Order: sequence, then C-alpha cells, then structure tokens
Amino acid sequence: MSKTAKDMLGRSGLTQVDDALAILLEKISGITTEVETIAVSKVLNRILATPILSPENLPAWPRSTMDGFAVQAADTFGASQSMPAYLNISGEVLMGRLPDDEVMKGNCMKIPTGGLVPKGADAVVMHENTVPVDEGLIEIVKDVGSGTAVMQAGEDVQRDQEILAPGTKINPYHMGLLAGVGITDIQVYKKPKIAILSTGDEIIPCDQTPEPGQIRDINAVSLAALIETVNGIPVQFGIVSDKKDIFFPVLEQAVSENDMVLFSGGSSVGTRDLGEQAIEKLGDPGILVHGVTLKPGKPIIIGLHGKTPVFGLPGHPVSALVCYETFVLPAIHSISGNLLPDYKTTVYAKLSRNVNSAAGRRDIVRVQIEKSDHQLTAIPILGKSGSISSLSKADGYFIIDETSQGFYEGTTIEVILFK
Amino acid sequence: MSKTAKDMLGRSGLTQVDDALAILLEKISGITTEVETIAVSKVLNRILATPILSPENLPAWPRSTMDGFAVQAADTFGASQSMPAYLNISGEVLMGRLPDDEVMKGNCMKIPTGGLVPKGADAVVMHENTVPVDEGLIEIVKDVGSGTAVMQAGEDVQRDQEILAPGTKINPYHMGLLAGVGITDIQVYKKPKIAILSTGDEIIPCDQTPEPGQIRDINAVSLAALIETVNGIPVQFGIVSDKKDIFFPVLEQAVSENDMVLFSGGSSVGTRDLGEQAIEKLGDPGILVHGVTLKPGKPIIIGLHGKTPVFGLPGHPVSALVCYETFVLPAIHSISGNLLPDYKTTVYAKLSRNVNSAAGRRDIVRVQIEKSDHQLTAIPILGKSGSISSLSKADGYFIIDETSQGFYEGTTIEVILFK
Repeated sequence: MSKTAKDMLGRSGLTQVDDALAILLEKISGITTEVETIAVSKVLNRILATPILSPENLPAWPRSTMDGFAVQAADTFGASQSMPAYLNISGEVLMGRLPDDEVMKGNCMKIPTGGLVPKGADAVVMHENTVPVDEGLIEIVKDVGSGTAVMQAGEDVQRDQEILAPGTKINPYHMGLLAGVGITDIQVYKKPKIAILSTGDEIIPCDQTPEPGQIRDINAVSLAALIETVNGIPVQFGIVSDKKDIFFPVLEQAVSENDMVLFSGGSSVGTRDLGEQAIEKLGDPGILVHGVTLKPGKPIIIGLHGKTPVFGLPGHPVSALVCYETFVLPAIHSISGNLLPDYKTTVYAKLSRNVNSAAGRRDIVRVQIEKSDHQLTAIPILGKSGSISSLSKADGYFIIDETSQGFYEGTTIEVILFK
Repeated sequence: MSKTAKDMLGRSGLTQVDDALAILLEKISGITTEVETIAVSKVLNRILATPILSPENLPAWPRSTMDGFAVQAADTFGASQSMPAYLNISGEVLMGRLPDDEVMKGNCMKIPTGGLVPKGADAVVMHENTVPVDEGLIEIVKDVGSGTAVMQAGEDVQRDQEILAPGTKINPYHMGLLAGVGITDIQVYKKPKIAILSTGDEIIPCDQTPEPGQIRDINAVSLAALIETVNGIPVQFGIVSDKKDIFFPVLEQAVSENDMVLFSGGSSVGTRDLGEQAIEKLGDPGILVHGVTLKPGKPIIIGLHGKTPVFGLPGHPVSALVCYETFVLPAIHSISGNLLPDYKTTVYAKLSRNVNSAAGRRDIVRVQIEKSDHQLTAIPILGKSGSISSLSKADGYFIIDETSQGFYEGTTIEVILFK
C-alpha cells in the first residue's frame, strides 16, 4: 500500500495507519529511558533492562514434596497393601535443618513437606502410604520409584539459567522468583516522563465553570491516567495559549525536560497549523507524519525532536483516545523498553449489529462487552467523537482496517480491551 | 452437591470450592472498608462508593462537530452541486465565546469545530460542502437536516443523569467524564490494609542466604505485589515463629490493625493445626472453612474475626497463588466495594494437550498462552506445586471443575489471565 492516501475530497497527504506507526517506531527504535536499579519489592510492572541469570540453584538442596518417610527407593520395590516392606526409622528430618544422619539401606527417616532429603535417600514415601508398627518400625504399603516426591536441587531453577529476559514487564510471580533466588534489586528502565499540554481558546481548567462556548480540559485528565496505567509519569503543563510566542517556548521547554510530549488542541485548521509549525521549529528530524487514514483521529501530527517524540492530538476526547491507543501507547512501550506485545488485552466477541466503514480508511469502533455462557458479545457504541460519556461506557474497541468496508452482525471480531 | 467431600483416603471434611467461596462471601457481605473523599485526578482504579449524578448538561450549549457554517437547515433543502443554495455570511463564531449574533433566515455564520451553535441556527454545513463566492456570500452544495453536525446541549450527558454507579472501578475515561462535568472529588472506598505473615521453621527473609534446608520467603513478596495490583496496601509482618506464644499475639495484632490477614505457612500438619487453633482463639465467628476440594490449595483455612477475614494459605508458592486467586482475591474485591465482576481477564484458547483430573476435585492448571492468527493456544505448565519458576512462566490458568475429569487436546477452554 502506498505511504499516502486520498481523503474523501480527493486530497492526498494522509498516511496509512500501519505506515505511520512503522515510521514512528523505526525512528524511535533504540531510544529508551535510562536504566536505574530498583529493589525487587518495588519493581511491580517495571520493565527489565538486562537479562537475569539465577545466582543459585532453586531449590538449593533436594526437598521433599510430601509429609512422609525418606527412603532408598530400592527398599520399597514390590511393596503393597498385602505385601508391605518394613523399614527401620533411623531418625527425623527437621524443617530448615541439615539432617543429622544418612539413610542407610533398610532404614528411613521421617520427613516433612519441604524437608531436606538426607544423603542416602532418593525418594519419599508419602505418609498416607505408611502404617506405623512401633516407634522404630514402619510398614510401606506402596512402592516408590527413585525421585518420587523429591524436588531435586536445581529442578525449579538452575544456577546461571536465564530466568527473565530484558523487556519483561515484571509481575508478582516474577518478583517471587527473583526473591526466591536471592536477587534483591534489578535494573529497570526509568519511568518515562510525559508532558501534557492543552491548547484551544475554548478549553478551561477542570475546576472552573465554563462560560458559554467553553469546555473543561477533559483530555489532560484522561491522558494523565492512561500514562499512569503504563507506568509513565504525567507532567501537566496545563492550558497553553495557541499564540505562537507563548506556545512555541512552552513546547520547547516541555521537549527539553521530558521523554515524550503530548499536546492536544482544537481540531481546527488554525491550531493544527500551529502544531505543525511548532514541531518544525523544534528542529530535526521534525514532522514524521501529519494526518492519517484513521477515523476518528485523522488530524494527528507525529514529530520527533532529537530523542523526544512529540504528538499533536486532536481535541475531541474520542479522537484523542484513538490516537493515544494507536500511536502514543506503542511509543510509550518502546521508550519504556517493553519488548513484549500485550496480546493479553484482546478478546474475541460476536458483533451485535452491522458496522460499515469506508475502504481505504481505518475505523476504530468503541464497544461494550457482554458476557453470556462461553460467548462474548461486542455492542458498538456509536456516539459522536466529541462524546466523553461514550468512552466512559466502552470496555474497548475493534478495528475495521483499510481493506474492509465493515462487518456483518454475528461476525467474530477481536476486541482490544481498555486496561 | 454436598458441602463436604471425601479426600483420596476417604476422609471427609473437605468443602467444595464453590461452597467455600459462597460461605466466605456471604459472611463478609456488607463488610467494606470506610469511605474517603479523593480528588478526581487521584482516583485511578479506586472503587466508587456512591452513585455519581451529573451536576450539568454536557455539552452545556449546542456545539458544532465540524468546521463549517451554522445555518437554518430549511435554507439548504434541495441544495446540490448542480443547484447550490446561496447564503449571506452574517458573522463568525469564535472558539470559547458566546456568538454575538443570531442566524436569521437566508444567513449563516462561520463556525469552528467545538464552536457554540448560535441562536437561530439548527445545523452546520461542513466546510467541504461549501464554496465561497465572496467575503459575504457562500454556496451550499449539499443540503443538511436539522441537527446535522450539532451536538445538542445535554446530548452527551444530561443534568442529574447517573453517570457512574457505586462499585465501579474508575478508569481513565471515567476520570475524563467526571472532570468534564465539573466534579473535582468523589467518594471511594479506602484501600484495604492487608497483613502478610509467614510462618515455618525453614523460611528466611529474602535478603539472607539459606542454610541447608532453608528457603527464602517467596510468598510474602508475591502476595504483596498481588495485593498492590488490586489497590490494596500490603502490611508486612515478616516471618513469625510458629510457637503459639509468639504466633497467637502477632496474629491478634495483625487482625486488630488490618482489614484482612493472610498467613502462609508450612503445609505440614503441625503448622496447619497451629493456624486453626489461632483462628479459633481469635473468637467469633472463627473458622469458616478448613480444607477444600482444590488442587493445588487443598489445606487452606478461611476464618473471620469480627469484620476481618483471616486466611491460612499453604506454604508452597503455587498452592498459595491458587488459594489467593480462588478465595483471597474475591474477598479483597468484596471488602473494597468492587461490585463488578472482572470478566475482562479471561480469554478462550485451544488446549495444546490432554489434561486429566479427578472427579470431585477442582484442578487449577497454569498455562502459557501462544497467539497465532485469530487463535490462542493454552500450553499447560505441569510443574510441581513448589515450583516458583512455573508460576513465573505462566500467563494465567484454567479450571477443571469437580464434575469434569479433564479436557482433551484441542478443547476450547477459558483461561483466566494474571493481571
């Protein structure tokens, strides 16, 4: 497909969504925030910067996985309810202690779950398969093979094994694993600082009451929360006048102090031109993309100054969201070092009605998900792009790509869920 | 199904999983943390405690959704490329301002996207469907109906409409909506404080090096992170001796100071008895459930003292996790006021191999998810329940319930994803 496409009036200059994203990701490839060292107890959802090799075997020693008796497996061969094997109890393994004895042929030692399997023993007979005869003698009523009910040293994790790869988003179980092998801190990418600017003569701060024609700065609130969701640090620059002598220096400051800059503005032509000029003035490489075949979200501007991506988002909340999900979020993942695609956020659902689109354009359609037995239904929310209540009702969205003119009711579609 | 079932040796006393969960949720029904007032900018992922009614219409005034000309729709009826309508331009609507004029019959006013639709006008003709004749005259080449390209006052949100229901987990778009209607702070449930105690002679703190037979306190790290994931506050009590005169008073303190208490202990019979005695000693209502038909996770103890649920979790990390997901997480949602089930965390996937289970028992099987074109595959991870690396590799788990003896390869199963 060509890099540019024509809009509905035949004007060219719009970039295909996939091309725009590829240009962006290629230009920022290799740009990440710096690396910092963080205690394992504090790394939830952070992105690992280096491979982690285990410094130890886990477990460090063979452990019993049952309450029972540590034995030489050969001593139990053929043992059954009708023909039990008899073993002398030569001692007991205490939790957290090195056993003070070996298990010799014909003997066994009492052992708790998690107890260190003593030398000589190569298996554990679970308590339920033994019958006590007296203090020093036990019947084994079921035979065991070598290794039964034993977790071998290094069976869970081997020393020097790579246990986590760079680019991993750390979850609670990763943290448990790190703690388990004695790693107390790891290197992760710093949280990206992301500046948020709002422009537009009609925009007022959220704690003020609109005069006729004014509207509160919804995008700054939603964008900040979206950024926090992926572990970014939102930096609010507030509402900035779209007068060049005010807007340009504030944008320059935002770019110099942050890892990424988002400005959301009036979607009017004048404000768009201002954004374009401002990014051009910042210097190389400047504007990467201006306008995409996306609905809503067409007027997005994507730029780069040095290592700092700059996004000019449409002012309408729904359009701003679509641009965020389509372009800003992948860019945040990229500069955060997050290498692993987040496939987990999609579900397949049956469409509740026909939805049409125009060929050559990508449509983003918000949906509510309803669940019944083993079946999800996606109900399109067809509000205007200025509607914030429609966003608030949505569970996610699906994509009608450029090659499609829509989907029929009952089609199974892939829904990308909001987190 | 009966409340109790028999274990593999025919001993009764185990409770069915669904019964155990129903008992727990019924006993803690109505118990929530207190309510606090929080600024909208800080409420991400918090649980709403009261219904939110909009104090305003949104938008407050009719707004244009296009750049174009505000008109009386009747003046455009029948207009087309070949037979345009001609209208006088009587003025311009400025962003964020009350229009200084009305639109009279035969006239129009230039209007930007988001501009307040002036009195007299009932529709907007988009810029692309107009042709300028001179400064004061415009051709309309496509007719519009009343209401075209206008978002009416209250169309997005009506004054006094309930925009968010109690029990809602606040997402970024909810925050945008709240900000948009001028709400600056809301009442949410306090984050529950959840105490974590570890017992067991073999457990040592994670920053120490194990002696033979010792193992680091993995569960405390994973549980704390899991609690943070659902906006709880983990309170670490550290490793507590399982001697009664030490353990009982520490547990009492934990119960009196927190909204929930988790202790994870050696899974040996002795430690289990200690937990049972400790919960009984706390007083009414005491032990709700002791032992469930769940694998892994059978030896869980669920108790309640006053308003504080107390969970005795098995020591093995995988067992502790399964008990967390099955019982503790629903209890956290309940005391956090989170009314809405989290259906979003499941996907359907095809099973990569046969998995067997025993009838009458619920099995929890960890899986990795692999994605190919429009198809997810669930690959079971069949590690021992002491294995923390298997947890670290898992993307989620599926359930083989009591009535099933397993699934064949290729069966579509519902996988519950880790967050």
